[in-house]
Amino acid sequence: MVQVVLPDGQIQDFPSCITAADVAEQISPRLAKAAVAAEVNGKVVDLNTPLPTGSPVQLKILTERDPQALEVLRHSAAHVMARAVLRLFPGAKLAFGPPVENGFYYDIDLDRPLKEEDLERIEAEMAKIVELDEPFERLEVPWEKAVEICRDLDQPYKVEHLREGLASEKTVSFYRQGEFLDLCEGPHIPSAGRLKAFKLLSVAGAYWRGDASRQQLQRLYGTAWFSRKDLEDYLHRLEEAKKRDHRVLGKRLELFTIEPMVGSGLVLWLPKGAIIRRQLEDFLYGELLRRGYQAVYTPHIGRVELYQTSGHYPYYADSQFPPIQMADGERYLLKPMNCPHHIMIYKSRPRSYRELPLRLAEFGTVYRFEQSGELTGMTRVRGFTQDDAHIFCTEEQVAEEFRGCLEMTQFVLQTLGFTDYRVRLSLRDPKSDKYVGDPEVWERAESALRRVCEEMNLPNLETAIGEAAFYGPKADFIVSDCIGREWQLGTVQLDYNLPSPQRFNLEYIGPDNRPHQPVMIHRAPFGSLERFTGILIEHFAGAFPLWLAPEQIRVLTVSEKFEEYARQVERQFREAGLRVVGDYRAEKVSAKIRDAQLELVPYMAVIGGREQEQGTVALRERRKGDLGAFPVAAVIAKLQEEIRLKIIPRYDDAQK
Amino acid sequence: MVQVVLPDGQIQDFPSCITAADVAEQISPRLAKAAVAAEVNGKVVDLNTPLPTGSPVQLKILTERDPQALEVLRHSAAHVMARAVLRLFPGAKLAFGPPVENGFYYDIDLDRPLKEEDLERIEAEMAKIVELDEPFERLEVPWEKAVEICRDLDQPYKVEHLREGLASEKTVSFYRQGEFLDLCEGPHIPSAGRLKAFKLLSVAGAYWRGDASRQQLQRLYGTAWFSRKDLEDYLHRLEEAKKRDHRVLGKRLELFTIEPMVGSGLVLWLPKGAIIRRQLEDFLYGELLRRGYQAVYTPHIGRVELYQTSGHYPYYADSQFPPIQMADGERYLLKPMNCPHHIMIYKSRPRSYRELPLRLAEFGTVYRFEQSGELTGMTRVRGFTQDDAHIFCTEEQVAEEFRGCLEMTQFVLQTLGFTDYRVRLSLRDPKSDKYVGDPEVWERAESALRRVCEEMNLPNLETAIGEAAFYGPKADFIVSDCIGREWQLGTVQLDYNLPSPQRFNLEYIGPDNRPHQPVMIHRAPFGSLERFTGILIEHFAGAFPLWLAPEQIRVLTVSEKFEEYARQVERQFREAGLRVVGDYRAEKVSAKIRDAQLELVPYMAVIGGREQEQGTVALRERRKGDLGAFPVAAVIAKLQEEIRLKIIPRYDDAQK
Repeated sequence: MVQVVLPDGQIQDFPSCITAADVAEQISPRLAKAAVAAEVNGKVVDLNTPLPTGSPVQLKILTERDPQALEVLRHSAAHVMARAVLRLFPGAKLAFGPPVENGFYYDIDLDRPLKEEDLERIEAEMAKIVELDEPFERLEVPWEKAVEICRDLDQPYKVEHLREGLASEKTVSFYRQGEFLDLCEGPHIPSAGRLKAFKLLSVAGAYWRGDASRQQLQRLYGTAWFSRKDLEDYLHRLEEAKKRDHRVLGKRLELFTIEPMVGSGLVLWLPKGAIIRRQLEDFLYGELLRRGYQAVYTPHIGRVELYQTSGHYPYYADSQFPPIQMADGERYLLKPMNCPHHIMIYKSRPRSYRELPLRLAEFGTVYRFEQSGELTGMTRVRGFTQDDAHIFCTEEQVAEEFRGCLEMTQFVLQTLGFTDYRVRLSLRDPKSDKYVGDPEVWERAESALRRVCEEMNLPNLETAIGEAAFYGPKADFIVSDCIGREWQLGTVQLDYNLPSPQRFNLEYIGPDNRPHQPVMIHRAPFGSLERFTGILIEHFAGAFPLWLAPEQIRVLTVSEKFEEYARQVERQFREAGLRVVGDYRAEKVSAKIRDAQLELVPYMAVIGGREQEQGTVALRERRKGDLGAFPVAAVIAKLQEEIRLKIIPRYDDAQK
Repeated sequence: MVQVVLPDGQIQDFPSCITAADVAEQISPRLAKAAVAAEVNGKVVDLNTPLPTGSPVQLKILTERDPQALEVLRHSAAHVMARAVLRLFPGAKLAFGPPVENGFYYDIDLDRPLKEEDLERIEAEMAKIVELDEPFERLEVPWEKAVEICRDLDQPYKVEHLREGLASEKTVSFYRQGEFLDLCEGPHIPSAGRLKAFKLLSVAGAYWRGDASRQQLQRLYGTAWFSRKDLEDYLHRLEEAKKRDHRVLGKRLELFTIEPMVGSGLVLWLPKGAIIRRQLEDFLYGELLRRGYQAVYTPHIGRVELYQTSGHYPYYADSQFPPIQMADGERYLLKPMNCPHHIMIYKSRPRSYRELPLRLAEFGTVYRFEQSGELTGMTRVRGFTQDDAHIFCTEEQVAEEFRGCLEMTQFVLQTLGFTDYRVRLSLRDPKSDKYVGDPEVWERAESALRRVCEEMNLPNLETAIGEAAFYGPKADFIVSDCIGREWQLGTVQLDYNLPSPQRFNLEYIGPDNRPHQPVMIHRAPFGSLERFTGILIEHFAGAFPLWLAPEQIRVLTVSEKFEEYARQVERQFREAGLRVVGDYRAEKVSAKIRDAQLELVPYMAVIGGREQEQGTVALRERRKGDLGAFPVAAVIAKLQEEIRLKIIPRYDDAQK
């Protein structure tokens, strides 16, 4: 007999040799029909896997609604694609073909490069295979036999994988699908007919085992979903993401550039991007002052000893630029973070409890060596400016400071239009001993942080036990942008390590006249200005709210006759502090409007005869079009108010 | 006969073998008495040097009013000091003993370190020598004889100098003064009696020939003047300078710190210093926008290739941090200047004449490796933030852009209270061929720059022919601070080199649809924020004008009873944007006032019973004391106006 524990806690007995599919059938034929795979004791397996006997079995039937089912579907789609490729290109050699986020790929060694039209042919062949609706059959074979099979199949990458990755296995599994047989751990959908909505997306180069010295393969990417609607939604999101790509918009709107002569991953902020950054910095700076922070400036290098004391060197040397080696043996490191410098400010003189909490803030540019393959526009770079701060406080002050950090992060994210986010509170695993600091202090801190999070009614609060850093618990903000992609932004981290006697040995003199160790909090609401601006570009699709827009209003003339009045209007706007540009070219006004729209300028002041006569402008909003005639002063007042309130216009098609 | 041309253009004939002293005597006995030395054909010589025969001789009798005479006096003082040392310490070995700015020194090898009381003994001995009023006699001897003399005198450094520095000379000169004989080029004052006002100041270590691997010597510093009054004024200025030392004030007022663990010459701006820097940056940023500049941000490193193209590497490698050497052979340099990065922004897309002048500005932090002996607080550092900008313009625009740069520099220096400055326009030497670029272009540019300077009526304009950089002419602002010390601050430099085809090959498309080479202008009104702030600290002796003061007003209570009202006042000040601190300690109000004065807080709002009753504060100004009772709103209005106008208070004792 098999004792089965269902997700709702129900326990049922079944005869041995029963499969998950059988259980589903017995629960309800509808469930059996919806079933894709099963989770048995926490592991996803084929539906037709016999359940283990002995102890009770935790069983969950996975249907199309479970995210793990989607992964199974995509894995099967990769097999179907490989089968189609082998039908069309019989000599093809297969490497790995896993599911990935939103889709799947298969790395294939082919004697000619695949083109757009090949993808269509492969898709069509896949459709034929799906039509056959053949089952995925699992075969377990001894390792030696597996090598033989793969050699017979003329699949040398599979042979190599068996000899290297799987050398210690006694038996391995294959999956058969019609004439197609593939070395594979599974699991898979019951039969190919479940693959109703898929599309091949692209082909890219990839190296065997990711090693640039090995064979170059072709990586064929596709996506698969349980319904055509899901597929279409995804393709639409892809399309949207492409339109919003900050690398494309950054170039078109002249926000930033990365120049090979300067170096990969090193961002040069062009004048228009620099305006956005300056606005963001000014906004944050005002919030910092309001919340009792003190700004500092520190250098971009420090002696290696500083990072040896902090522990950042040599432990993280792989992700750092190597030290600068001086002739006299001295070594300097480009700072990979600002904390050691802020700590040196804390330590520059004795501190009293009366000074705490001491909150030191800096827009500090740090340098880390990301692998070149990881670099992406502004979002993965080698030099970035953190909106960083370090709070030095007493243990008693931790909860209030933590609350202050969360409130500031909430406030700045909401101001930027990120209203959809979740907060993940990462706590220690009480069973582990990898943490620095007194367990009782952790205990008190964690329960204080939990209490703060609960009191604040944070949306979608998740508590992740065991996810704390070794030096302290932390909270992260995971933000959804307006096309639903998630980004990890703001972070607040407690630190019991750097202040400790083993590191910087920080102290303050308490009311008892004795030295005590302060707690440090690291926090950055944006994370980095580069990454955050990159995300903002995509979030707003380049159409920034007025307070951030590099150009806020453009003055356009209907004909050259009105240039003098227009220049006067332009001057008035400029003197009112608006970022204004005049377009007095001898072009049609419709062409000028179109240009301003394309450049995503939020407002246009159109000037013709009537406006000149009446001392007004015809105001246009980029999305709403003509708003009517207004006196210049009224336009200034309207725009200044929109800037002051940092309003984010909402349009049906620009927001989720 | 000797034909002598006097400074007023008069030509007189004298018999040959006549000396400058004789001519002075013939012109007027008073001049002869006042005479210290003479300038013959542009060279300063002893008064008793026979005038050369043959062609006409340009002769100027130097009196105590001529700066060159002061140098002669100090050189002679160094001899008298050395003579005194030899009398007191017979085994002393002499190295070099030149005049320097404001004084003189002599490097001496002695078997024991000189102490304070030794300086007094040496001074007393010098006074005795001066009393004797013996003449300085010049002796010319063949080189071999000179070596013999120095060997007889047991002066090995003089022997080494003859063998190395003077090896190619046929004859060399000595000066005798009583029993003292010293290898010396001269010239000297006629006799020791002219040395009426001198003082020994300090003793420091120095290496023979400045080489750390050679003997360590003692450098004995002194100063000498023609009158006791001049000496006292100078000692007073020294005293003032010591009180104003930005390193001392920077520590006491908590403006900045330099920490050995971070590295020498690397400034950490403490919160109060960071407020000053931020105010300066905001002020400059506002001016930049008003004057049509565009801000950019660029990284602090760049590939070595970038600096090979600019020519900054390897030519200036000695003053740079060495490159960061990556595992893959790539090398990055900490940027020693911002121009190459701004050039890459210019080059990031094709440029049209319609975009010019393009003015790119950045508070760009650069790193240069100054020798550790050269480092001084904030004024000589290894990392500094330039208030940098680069203008790309056409040749026709050069004059107007140059004018704009000079105007901005004038404006910002005057705003900071530097009203006493001179401008040095450095032009090329038309006879030299070391300059880059077309001589005709230089010719046109230089005459345009001269015209601009003349039209602007610049105070104390100097034109320095031959002082231009090889890449272009430039203008420097040399500013006197309020104790009369000169600092070179703002600079404006034309550059024909970096845009050239041999360097970055910059282009713009002209109205003729053909490519042209733009001119670059480098300019920085402050130079660097570190150095400028260091100078400002000394200029204001730490008492910053209200708009820059880290703390603008302090609220003080007469007793604890008034704390609640005081906190309310404090809040009102804070909400009005003032930087305010409350002092509610249980101390006497006089003690609180004294503390605020010592911390150089510009205003104090004192709060007692009457103020609480009447809803006022008793306002105190740091230097003027009590100003009377004012409503809080009136204080806010007064301070805001003072901030807005960036007023610099003038006090008799704080300003020159």
